[in-house]
Amino acid sequence: MLVPPPSYHHPMSRITAGILTVGDELTSGDRVDTNSTWLSQRLLELGVETAFHLALPDDRAAIAASIRESAPRVSVLLITGGLGPTEDDLTREALADALGEELVTDEAALGLLRGRFEKRGLEMPRRNLQQVRRPRSAAMLGNPVGTAPGLAARAEGTPIYVMPGVPGEMKRMWADHVAPAVRELVNGSDRCLTAWIHTVSLAESKVGEIIEDLMQRGGPVVVGTLVSDYIVSVRVRAAGAAPEIEDLFVTTARTVEERLGVYAFGRDEDTLASVIVRRLAAQGATLVTAESCTGGLVGSMITDVPGASAVYLGGWVTYSNAFKAEFLDVSPETIAQHGAVSGLTADQMAIGALAQSGARYALAITGVAGPEGGSAAKPVGTVFIALAFIDEDGEPSSHVRHFVFVGDREMVRRRAAITALAMLQFHLANDGTVPEMLGEFRPRIETGA
Amino acid sequence: MLVPPPSYHHPMSRITAGILTVGDELTSGDRVDTNSTWLSQRLLELGVETAFHLALPDDRAAIAASIRESAPRVSVLLITGGLGPTEDDLTREALADALGEELVTDEAALGLLRGRFEKRGLEMPRRNLQQVRRPRSAAMLGNPVGTAPGLAARAEGTPIYVMPGVPGEMKRMWADHVAPAVRELVNGSDRCLTAWIHTVSLAESKVGEIIEDLMQRGGPVVVGTLVSDYIVSVRVRAAGAAPEIEDLFVTTARTVEERLGVYAFGRDEDTLASVIVRRLAAQGATLVTAESCTGGLVGSMITDVPGASAVYLGGWVTYSNAFKAEFLDVSPETIAQHGAVSGLTADQMAIGALAQSGARYALAITGVAGPEGGSAAKPVGTVFIALAFIDEDGEPSSHVRHFVFVGDREMVRRRAAITALAMLQFHLANDGTVPEMLGEFRPRIETGA
Repeated sequence: MLVPPPSYHHPMSRITAGILTVGDELTSGDRVDTNSTWLSQRLLELGVETAFHLALPDDRAAIAASIRESAPRVSVLLITGGLGPTEDDLTREALADALGEELVTDEAALGLLRGRFEKRGLEMPRRNLQQVRRPRSAAMLGNPVGTAPGLAARAEGTPIYVMPGVPGEMKRMWADHVAPAVRELVNGSDRCLTAWIHTVSLAESKVGEIIEDLMQRGGPVVVGTLVSDYIVSVRVRAAGAAPEIEDLFVTTARTVEERLGVYAFGRDEDTLASVIVRRLAAQGATLVTAESCTGGLVGSMITDVPGASAVYLGGWVTYSNAFKAEFLDVSPETIAQHGAVSGLTADQMAIGALAQSGARYALAITGVAGPEGGSAAKPVGTVFIALAFIDEDGEPSSHVRHFVFVGDREMVRRRAAITALAMLQFHLANDGTVPEMLGEFRPRIETGA
Repeated sequence: MLVPPPSYHHPMSRITAGILTVGDELTSGDRVDTNSTWLSQRLLELGVETAFHLALPDDRAAIAASIRESAPRVSVLLITGGLGPTEDDLTREALADALGEELVTDEAALGLLRGRFEKRGLEMPRRNLQQVRRPRSAAMLGNPVGTAPGLAARAEGTPIYVMPGVPGEMKRMWADHVAPAVRELVNGSDRCLTAWIHTVSLAESKVGEIIEDLMQRGGPVVVGTLVSDYIVSVRVRAAGAAPEIEDLFVTTARTVEERLGVYAFGRDEDTLASVIVRRLAAQGATLVTAESCTGGLVGSMITDVPGASAVYLGGWVTYSNAFKAEFLDVSPETIAQHGAVSGLTADQMAIGALAQSGARYALAITGVAGPEGGSAAKPVGTVFIALAFIDEDGEPSSHVRHFVFVGDREMVRRRAAITALAMLQFHLANDGTVPEMLGEFRPRIETGA
């Protein structure tokens, strides 16, 4: 028995889950298992604690043995992966083995799958037939975004849910089928409250210092930090049925937010881009982008937000010097004297984008992402960001900042894109001024408004 | 028993490892477990296959039970995490429980630790004392980059190595102590060869059908498929010391590639964008992009490739209709009659981008990413992609395709960007024609060259 013994329990929850992920690519180290992480987060939001994550290769006997032995030890068992149409997708077979049942074809699922292929004028590959087979006592879970239906079964009283390994399909199936079932299991008796407060441009250690006292363990409200893609997030979590817990939770979250001030840009599902789109829409303002080293990354982050078309007009990817001069009116003399990677070039790109488009805001980025192209004066990681805007008198104005970001090509590009968004968010949230940017985000030179 | 049953074995390797990672932050979903992935990669390089990854919370009884039960089932058990100086670091205690031994203080390790603190003029916190305790029969592994020494023990003949959870400390201890021990276990007899062959525009089931015979398990060469970000990759892996294994491995990989034909675009570290940049550079050709619904994603993928500036001039993000008309000369009549999401608009965007830039190739994308904006005629997921190029007579020509992609906003955008790159790759690899696009990638309408 690898799972926790029966004596195991945790004060936060009486309901426990086990998560089994299947695939050679996991145990070979070809792929990091992010499904387990995501599912544990969702489970905790419902008040369910995860007792174990187990990853196994595509081995029918190993999967079957693990299902058999682990199901009785948890309140619910979630499985992802191995539902595909190829030879090495064996989770369906293993579940049947664990239940001691044979596989049968689900006629309804077969009809749906055939329909999908017919609608697109395609013949269904024979191999897809295995995807509509299920252990006799199991039910199928619909998958509107892929060909692999999921499975719901029960072993010795423990509900088992099998979802595809493809994250997009797994998440959809979780939302449609598994979360409602788990919520019913929990029955609202144990609640877990979680709030996330997201910050940008502060190092994690700095955030930790600012809220050190709140991070002391022991009470019913637990505060921690997590860094993801250069965003430092503070997690406030509380569990229990007592009404005073909720007050304490709300007060703690508000205190965190107040202490972090302008650096705290959003909560929970907010992203920098979604907050910016919301703020611009409220102002009735429009935005354009002019990107060199980020090559379209900022535009892509903004247009990730549903409804971005209300505020984002479009942009230019001026990767070559010719594009900068021809389409954004960057002066060839500026490029010759100061270089394509310079504060003046960034500024002219942003002002040019404003002039071309009639937008109220423009973000421009130029830099050396590496690995080649660095020099003593402008090493790899050097990035200039300009935020141009139409001020209260109707005149164009701008902030320009000079950064030197640490990391490889991808890290420099992502940091540059996020920092550009941070500058705009600060300007929008802070009455048109950009506060001191700290940590990794501290600029070398500040000019402009 | 969650671990594979005793009958379990895999032809690729006689030596198997189990990996146990410890920490509340893993099972709560606050942190992704990257230690297991990294260790499995290193193990495979030494010819050792990983039988399972198991992550447990900081629970002494659960860890002890899992060590006891899993050690006999693998050739070596690796454990990371829970060696720190705080209350919730319990792996040391759990190992002692599993071995049925008491903890004793290791005098040599205590002396070293005291020395470290003295050298820095610091008093040693009392809590650090627990870090130099070990089960009576265990040995300590030095940690030159942290305060937590590791542990080496043996349970029923299986060697167990416990390393810190901090990745930098774990990697150093692996290199210094664990890798040499595992290498000795393997005795240099097993090698592991891996090749990846990447395909685009074929469904996984179709790929599985084409190489079904090669995917049968049992021989020394194992073939599997993996889907990541809409790219279906075939993994060919072989292990063993015999020289004929290498021949068989090379032949199998070549057969896979030949059967997948033009759909197989690259190997190993190749991406669609990196292959395109390489091909364009070899031709001395240039590329521009004109993106609507993808908002800069294609430009961002291309500029992810180091050296992209040799071939990529830049692009336009024409998110608004005004931008399409003003900067790419899309005719307002076309937009009025056919819509901004239409084959004609895509075609004019691509031709306009060619004309503006003088590039040889232009990719243009317009579509409905959702969740809003769909209609009966053009549901969410509708995307038109145009590839314009200067043909042999010096005239602009184009391929235009109409797709309906399944999925949410992010999935539609990513599929659209990858499909656009696939069209260009097919054109470059296939003498200027785009082969039949299949599966998810099958267009509704084909027009143009």
